[in-house]
Amino acid sequence: MTPDARATRMTDLFGRAPLAAHLGMTLRFDADLRAVVGIAHAPFLDHGLGQVHGGVFATLIDTAAWFTAAVHYDTWISTVDFSVRLLEPAEGEDLVATGEIVRLGRRLAAADAEVRTAAGRLTAVGGGTFAVTGVEYG
Amino acid sequence: MTPDARATRMTDLFGRAPLAAHLGMTLRFDADLRAVVGIAHAPFLDHGLGQVHGGVFATLIDTAAWFTAAVHYDTWISTVDFSVRLLEPAEGEDLVATGEIVRLGRRLAAADAEVRTAAGRLTAVGGGTFAVTGVEYG
Amino acid sequence: MTPDARATRMTDLFGRAPLAAHLGMTLRFDADLRAVVGIAHAPFLDHGLGQVHGGVFATLIDTAAWFTAAVHYDTWISTVDFSVRLLEPAEGEDLVATGEIVRLGRRLAAADAEVRTAAGRLTAVGGGTFAVTGVEYG
Amino acid sequence: MTPDARATRMTDLFGRAPLAAHLGMTLRFDADLRAVVGIAHAPFLDHGLGQVHGGVFATLIDTAAWFTAAVHYDTWISTVDFSVRLLEPAEGEDLVATGEIVRLGRRLAAADAEVRTAAGRLTAVGGGTFAVTGVEYG
Repeated sequence: MTPDARATRMTDLFGRAPLAAHLGMTLRFDADLRAVVGIAHAPFLDHGLGQVHGGVFATLIDTAAWFTAAVHYDTWISTVDFSVRLLEPAEGEDLVATGEIVRLGRRLAAADAEVRTAAGRLTAVGGGTFAVTGVEYG
Repeated sequence: MTPDARATRMTDLFGRAPLAAHLGMTLRFDADLRAVVGIAHAPFLDHGLGQVHGGVFATLIDTAAWFTAAVHYDTWISTVDFSVRLLEPAEGEDLVATGEIVRLGRRLAAADAEVRTAAGRLTAVGGGTFAVTGVEYG
Repeated sequence: MTPDARATRMTDLFGRAPLAAHLGMTLRFDADLRAVVGIAHAPFLDHGLGQVHGGVFATLIDTAAWFTAAVHYDTWISTVDFSVRLLEPAEGEDLVATGEIVRLGRRLAAADAEVRTAAGRLTAVGGGTFAVTGVEYG
Repeated sequence: MTPDARATRMTDLFGRAPLAAHLGMTLRFDADLRAVVGIAHAPFLDHGLGQVHGGVFATLIDTAAWFTAAVHYDTWISTVDFSVRLLEPAEGEDLVATGEIVRLGRRLAAADAEVRTAAGRLTAVGGGTFAVTGVEYG
């Protein structure tokens, strides 16, 4: 399977993810096949004090790291764990998360992700570990 | 401020969190003043293979840990970092996250949370670290 | 293999770990087959300001979590990742780390550990994720 | 205080850390003021199966991240939490950990670190969060 075909399969999968649509996330792959996950600010992303909820940062990081790793495998990868460091609050700003491969193993993969505002300000970083399963995409 | 008054202030704050409403989360405090965050399953919580998205588990854990710690402080606490371990997938099941205090310091707090299905099956665990700020709830 | 035989195999393995001897760690299993790792304070465990080095807490947590999980498997488990939260400094005090199973899966295991001073004060918590390999103990 | 003076203060502090001597760690700062922590392989660094113990990786990452952040502050920074991902085992190889700033805040700092073998193979990554205290180095 070519990198382009893999990326297409991943964007198809993303297009079927209800949470992505519910939150307004978008996905593309950059020239290095890293997942770039965007989200336009919407009031429903905020916590009670009017800033973007930590769960949104976690979702962006999980998603960008997952797709950055998953595009390199023929079968489903399952998230084992992930962590998030919130560096700066974001208020009313569009956000972009970009993944980065840490390791692509036969059984386990690891990828990081960073979240920046549309203006380029770094707001959160994190990463995940993923187990390579035998589940086909079908 | 009495524990009951603190809990009321927290549930008021939760009621003003747009993401909580957007995902369908509810909050109550148990007899030990631990936050119990519920979420009824809805299709929009799922990823592309029809199971609950990792970002939802992260949001539940962040929320339960945050409120479990925050109820003990007079001022806003800010999430520094948090991590999530996904133990079992969940499919179409209502979920409940319960927080647990790890440490309540003067400047930093730490709390864990676990997520179980309505049937009691443990699906995810995690925890967060929070910085105590001087920001009043006003 | 009986639980006692498994525990014996683990304590034999621990007895062959040079780092354990170099730091002065001891291992036993409690009645629930949880690993209990002790360390007598020694000046060489400290950082430059005279408190126990964070790396020692990490080593205690990794070791207690690893053995608590490993005793349940016939083959070697490999540490995927682990994290540590340092709650209180320790100065000149003996320490005890106790593990706790989070999940024992076919391919992945997870365990937590907490570190207390001999007097019972909680100083650090953490946990690890472990991949079950096919490597026999031989 | 000049960057050189800060680096000197840090290497002095490192020189007084008993654990650093006990494990055989060395510290220098590179041209970007990132901490570079080396460790020559010694049998006492291994676990029971003859590879470098996870606690050693954690100690290297904690140390490299801590010094990379600490050199930018006038007062002591206290480790809040850190995490480690073990990517590949190391056997009988010298190791080098290099830190990288993630964020230098007024109250909290974050730094990452990676561990490579002398031959350049990436074996572990991780990072920490540090609280800026008012404690002077004296």
